[in-house]
Amino acid sequence: MNKIEHIGIAVKNIKEATETYEALLNKKPYKEEEVESEGVKTVFFETGESKIELLGATSDQSPIAKYLDKKGEGIHHIAFAVDDINFEIQRLEAKGFQLINQKAKPGADGKIIAFLHPKSNHGVLVELCQDA
Amino acid sequence: MNKIEHIGIAVKNIKEATETYEALLNKKPYKEEEVESEGVKTVFFETGESKIELLGATSDQSPIAKYLDKKGEGIHHIAFAVDDINFEIQRLEAKGFQLINQKAKPGADGKIIAFLHPKSNHGVLVELCQDA
Repeated sequence: MNKIEHIGIAVKNIKEATETYEALLNKKPYKEEEVESEGVKTVFFETGESKIELLGATSDQSPIAKYLDKKGEGIHHIAFAVDDINFEIQRLEAKGFQLINQKAKPGADGKIIAFLHPKSNHGVLVELCQDA
Repeated sequence: MNKIEHIGIAVKNIKEATETYEALLNKKPYKEEEVESEGVKTVFFETGESKIELLGATSDQSPIAKYLDKKGEGIHHIAFAVDDINFEIQRLEAKGFQLINQKAKPGADGKIIAFLHPKSNHGVLVELCQDA
């Protein structure tokens, strides 16, 4: 794990949340991206070597819509940058971590990603994140 | 906001959680610290320019004990490094953010800190963090 790649924050209204985080971080987002397959709209801010990723739902079936229904707004996941995601998946499985994605898959922002189950990490949804 | 200074994670059993995050991050913590006034024990891991801070309760009256009762284990707050915490407090108050601490106070790891209320930040408890 080289660094925190980003923190994902689930929000109800991505336009309002973008204005809030512009004011908080005192800067504009550097990118917006819709991941249609996931029903998610994302807005990215840079902060040092890491990013803040706002996550809004674009459909009721979106994992973010389901998360908001269940837990409300807040920090959704933490993503760590890795050099070799397949190596990390194997290393963590061998240590007993439960993977949501046994195989890495394409994610937003040009990354290959895999999620670890929150119950393996004391309630924290962890994403592994490798440059594609 | 210069960078993510740390991510605070509330855990029930700090010893077990330390073992989990050692395995996840594939490294040892660099520091443990008890903040008696807050009823909190902290364990710190480095990850790039940011830190992972595990937070365990040492008393039933601890804010972490109350958080665990209400929400369970998981990400508790995100801390941003700032150069001038008093300037940031004034800047954010003027923009309508609600501060939990109107005045900066000493925190763990040799920092001066102040918290913003989660309802100002779409459910995210935000800490401002300046080197003492």
